[in-house]
Amino acid sequence: MAEPRFDVAGIGNAIVDVLANANDAFLTTHALPKGGMVLVDEAQAEKLYGAMGPGIESSGGSAGNTIAGLASLGARVAYIGKVNDDGLGKIFRHDITSIGATFETKPLTGELSTARCMILVTPDAERTMSTFLGACTQLGPNDIDEGLIRDSHVTYVEGYLWDMDAAKQAIIKAADHAREAGRKFALSLSDTFCVERHKAEFLDLVDNHVDILFANETEIMALYDTDDFEIAAKAVQGKVDLAALTRSAKGCRVVTAAEMTDVPAEPVAHLVDTTGAGDQFAAGFLFGYCRGYEPKLCARIGAIAAAEVVSHFGARPEVSSLAELVKEKLG
Amino acid sequence: MAEPRFDVAGIGNAIVDVLANANDAFLTTHALPKGGMVLVDEAQAEKLYGAMGPGIESSGGSAGNTIAGLASLGARVAYIGKVNDDGLGKIFRHDITSIGATFETKPLTGELSTARCMILVTPDAERTMSTFLGACTQLGPNDIDEGLIRDSHVTYVEGYLWDMDAAKQAIIKAADHAREAGRKFALSLSDTFCVERHKAEFLDLVDNHVDILFANETEIMALYDTDDFEIAAKAVQGKVDLAALTRSAKGCRVVTAAEMTDVPAEPVAHLVDTTGAGDQFAAGFLFGYCRGYEPKLCARIGAIAAAEVVSHFGARPEVSSLAELVKEKLG
Repeated sequence: MAEPRFDVAGIGNAIVDVLANANDAFLTTHALPKGGMVLVDEAQAEKLYGAMGPGIESSGGSAGNTIAGLASLGARVAYIGKVNDDGLGKIFRHDITSIGATFETKPLTGELSTARCMILVTPDAERTMSTFLGACTQLGPNDIDEGLIRDSHVTYVEGYLWDMDAAKQAIIKAADHAREAGRKFALSLSDTFCVERHKAEFLDLVDNHVDILFANETEIMALYDTDDFEIAAKAVQGKVDLAALTRSAKGCRVVTAAEMTDVPAEPVAHLVDTTGAGDQFAAGFLFGYCRGYEPKLCARIGAIAAAEVVSHFGARPEVSSLAELVKEKLG
Repeated sequence: MAEPRFDVAGIGNAIVDVLANANDAFLTTHALPKGGMVLVDEAQAEKLYGAMGPGIESSGGSAGNTIAGLASLGARVAYIGKVNDDGLGKIFRHDITSIGATFETKPLTGELSTARCMILVTPDAERTMSTFLGACTQLGPNDIDEGLIRDSHVTYVEGYLWDMDAAKQAIIKAADHAREAGRKFALSLSDTFCVERHKAEFLDLVDNHVDILFANETEIMALYDTDDFEIAAKAVQGKVDLAALTRSAKGCRVVTAAEMTDVPAEPVAHLVDTTGAGDQFAAGFLFGYCRGYEPKLCARIGAIAAAEVVSHFGARPEVSSLAELVKEKLG
């Protein structure tokens, strides 16, 4: 099989984040589930923005963050996602293309503005998200470039896309193209609430389409209706080639058909903001995977990338090169 | 004299920053003077943005940053500056009002968009700025609210405003209102290139209008045409009530008519980005000044605020309360 043009093609909600500090009382007042992601309409978004503190804007979106991390690691990457051709859309496009990602999804020009996610960071560094999807709701099967998927070692999608019917069809189409071309299909479960909303479909996906699965411990336990992590880890074993189950400071469980391995988390000197931790873990893991590294080393690179992103505000790496950071850490 | 409604009214260029990493070669290629600020037109701004790496957007502007710092310290503050009623203008307005600042300057609605400053941070943490002034060029004497100036303990303006004739007139008007009301007028010299552009006018301002002067060592040396800091410090002595001359890691020289005192810098564990260091020093200093603290303690609070802002990307405090940080540090 020919060497693919891309290591990873990411498909996701193309979002600009607005990050701000908040306290727990603010979350309670606005009925926001701590650590989770809720969808809001434009009026709700305006109201919440008006009530929250000063923000920092940066390109986000789960798969977008992972693609940015992969680019910083030196991978060849592409992205599929829907923005409007407005100010925030131009920022999103600049940020993802300026790191070397191919991003050719046609932007909207109409009323639906580029998606925004208000991310409230509490003093314990946990992030709680409220997303106005806007233009993202228009991502559909026509946005899936078959040639691009066939020419990518891994196609990586975020579970958040299941909140929209058209995007769902787009993903199934992408998974089929990847399989036909002998490539790999990877999924992130994204969010516990998201898993609860789409459990049956996620189980079907995992059983029938997914080669590489990313989930944190609460997501994988939600998927298999258990509050015992070991039961969940055993349940997913054999269902996919590779599952990387992240457990915050407890590290990561790598599950293959043959074995289960625990990889420790990278120490974090000063935890600031957990936004993007899972996304950057996936970036590091997939980078190693595409280089043919063994799963333990993939998880180690994931842990290093995640540790960088939680040590500052924002969901994408701030170091000028994650590749250099990883080289330094691995010695 | 009645207790004024505001501790500090800030007047400045209302700007949204776009911060990105860059190396020294990038600055050379684009002929950007390291550590300085250059003005660019919209076409140059687009070209530079297209060439630079992924960014983080946040409200900026020198005086705006100082007002944000003062609010985080618990001061009562107001801001005067010109934005457009566009997306970035709404972000600027949100960020400064959400921290409690009064901001009633009428926005533009026409073609001239909200100002942007592209801030390139090199590996040595130095920042180099390229500013497209846009709507800021329309700030004029009519934007100066006499009642607000008369009701502010200190009116603080940034030297950058001297790049526009209308703003210059606005500032002289503000200085006159402040003097008539028996209040204080403070100026920051802003930037060495800015001092070189407007030396004669700045000397006149310092001699005839300014009560409190902020400058770093290269700016004060440029003002007095010397490469000897001690000569510059002596030259300004007696010209203003108080001069706070910052010297990065070497700390700050506080100059009054009667004496000169050196105050050490606050240690910084991990220097990330010097953007906003001078602005936050001014915030801390003015906070102490408005509380009636002695100049040495004012400079100490300035040093604490500056140390916070250089330890992360961006020009405004990231801690949820600078007041708490200062309380902790002063013990």
